[in-house]
Amino acid sequence: MKLAILAEGLFAPRTAKTAIGVLRYAPYEVVAIVDSVTAGEEAFAVVGAGKGVPIVSTVDEARRLGAEALLIGTAAAGGWIADAYRPHLARALESGLDVWNGLHERVLSDPALAEAAKRGRATVRELREPPADLPIGGHRKRRAGAVVVLTVGTDAAVGKMTASLEIVAALKRMGKRAAFVATGQTGIAIAGEGISVDAVVADFIAGAAELMVCDAAEEADYVIVEGQGSLTHPGFSGVTLGLLHGSAPDLMVLCHDANRQVMKGYEQEGLPVRGIRECVAIYEEAASWSRPPGDPPARVVAIALNTFGASDRFADAVIQSAAHVTALPAGDPIREGAAGADRLAQAIVSARVPAG
Amino acid sequence: MKLAILAEGLFAPRTAKTAIGVLRYAPYEVVAIVDSVTAGEEAFAVVGAGKGVPIVSTVDEARRLGAEALLIGTAAAGGWIADAYRPHLARALESGLDVWNGLHERVLSDPALAEAAKRGRATVRELREPPADLPIGGHRKRRAGAVVVLTVGTDAAVGKMTASLEIVAALKRMGKRAAFVATGQTGIAIAGEGISVDAVVADFIAGAAELMVCDAAEEADYVIVEGQGSLTHPGFSGVTLGLLHGSAPDLMVLCHDANRQVMKGYEQEGLPVRGIRECVAIYEEAASWSRPPGDPPARVVAIALNTFGASDRFADAVIQSAAHVTALPAGDPIREGAAGADRLAQAIVSARVPAG
Repeated sequence: MKLAILAEGLFAPRTAKTAIGVLRYAPYEVVAIVDSVTAGEEAFAVVGAGKGVPIVSTVDEARRLGAEALLIGTAAAGGWIADAYRPHLARALESGLDVWNGLHERVLSDPALAEAAKRGRATVRELREPPADLPIGGHRKRRAGAVVVLTVGTDAAVGKMTASLEIVAALKRMGKRAAFVATGQTGIAIAGEGISVDAVVADFIAGAAELMVCDAAEEADYVIVEGQGSLTHPGFSGVTLGLLHGSAPDLMVLCHDANRQVMKGYEQEGLPVRGIRECVAIYEEAASWSRPPGDPPARVVAIALNTFGASDRFADAVIQSAAHVTALPAGDPIREGAAGADRLAQAIVSARVPAG
Repeated sequence: MKLAILAEGLFAPRTAKTAIGVLRYAPYEVVAIVDSVTAGEEAFAVVGAGKGVPIVSTVDEARRLGAEALLIGTAAAGGWIADAYRPHLARALESGLDVWNGLHERVLSDPALAEAAKRGRATVRELREPPADLPIGGHRKRRAGAVVVLTVGTDAAVGKMTASLEIVAALKRMGKRAAFVATGQTGIAIAGEGISVDAVVADFIAGAAELMVCDAAEEADYVIVEGQGSLTHPGFSGVTLGLLHGSAPDLMVLCHDANRQVMKGYEQEGLPVRGIRECVAIYEEAASWSRPPGDPPARVVAIALNTFGASDRFADAVIQSAAHVTALPAGDPIREGAAGADRLAQAIVSARVPAG
């Protein structure tokens, strides 16, 4: 599969989360980024991922480079398709290029795009479309012996998916049977499977998480679940708690963006990001609620930091400070590379997991 | 509007929650219950609500009594239409009777029922169908001066809707401008409007709640929001937290079913219901997470008990014990009637509401 990624007007480190995740982790080739604003540059120069991947202005150029499908590479809160994307999507579909979409808005609900898809006989893969027949959570027991780890965050979009994927890679380097459970559109685009828990009917958040975790636990000894949102997020906290109770982790890794002072999307409201020590307590408390009193608690065992863009000196200080205030191993799996990820994985492997 | 309520094989106090709520509170006439098992009895004799409402075996009998629509009157976890209901629904639709459905499963997704509706030119009102274009929560400020109260629970199905409606009635008796915000199918059937927050796409739980609360606060000084699920419920906790953060209550009323020892639906797992004092702490803690640190906390100000079926002596003991362990006013608004509801309403009116 050869993919092009659409990021018209939004190809930048803070806005093109999906594009960057796919450039960094997907097991298939990305032949081009489509963005007329940064066209001519190399992806890596703009977002720090995608060595050798060209940025082009049009879908037709991406096709000439061999693209077989076009992935929508950004996601804004609310999940609408940006108007600037529609002409590119129409051109892709009418020329027979399939589209992969991870937004809440469905591509074919736009009549013009539906018409274009019909003309070009192109298909749309909706990454956020949930399966039918999801269960209610809390009824299925997973294979004993599998250790489930959920990444949780001090905010949305702090690097939970990245930390999860780097931890899986580190566990595999240690010879462990580790699996990644994708719970959001970018993770699904990368893993090729998963359920976008923020897109299911609200009653089924926990059931969807439980289903994926139990299935993954059949084959893996370490199941690393991509977290979503934050318990402290005014808009998305429900998804976070449903995912926490449904995945019922043995261990958690708290993710934090060292540059984030105010909750993302709540800059106008001035809602501060809570401290990492406070968030450790919040997640451990909430994890206990759906379990019988006296059950072994799920603990946060490591802190994954995202120090993107910071100076080395500031990043070092942040990592050391996080480890100090929480008395837990801390690391940035991107800045520090394998050393950071290995530290997080080691914390997981060394943790005493209560016999469930 | 004259309504019949379908409860085939399930017309009993613990299974016909929707039917009982509508019998007790809806502002329109219920002409019959359809249930071949209890047919011939009066509704009140079977479920303690619906004085003078006959139970009949067939939809045709309900029609002869003047029914203009048929409401599905029960709801099981998972939200599927019971197979025993389908012949009744088909008969209703093909004979031109409209159907009101509060389940997750949509009536017209059953081809046989869609065909029947076409033949009878009948329409289906899906009470759980969410509106399009819901916002992300946390961005809209409600009218200052309106007091928002959320009913919360130690479990699902403990009486939160009933407590909410009784509190609204009590506040109105006190001359207050009070509004009920319906967040589930039964509440919507009663109020004629609302959004079933458990049926929205998960990312929009809080946004849906915020929308309804802000709208209601324009006209009312006391906005009483029907709670859903429980923060301690393994399946539905995500809905509960989204509703808590989205409605952002000033005050909460904790609802508890005195007969409930084990979480409903988790009898096999043996998951105990947490104590009310513990639940007070859980809800107050969780309410604070999406607010800036230092913001005035949302407090639980009263305990609404559901002592259905218990002896007077046991019920009295439960109410007194709840008040004692929490140091809060406690009452059962059904068993005690207006006296119980007035006690809860008085706790709300007397509470010091932090200036937001």
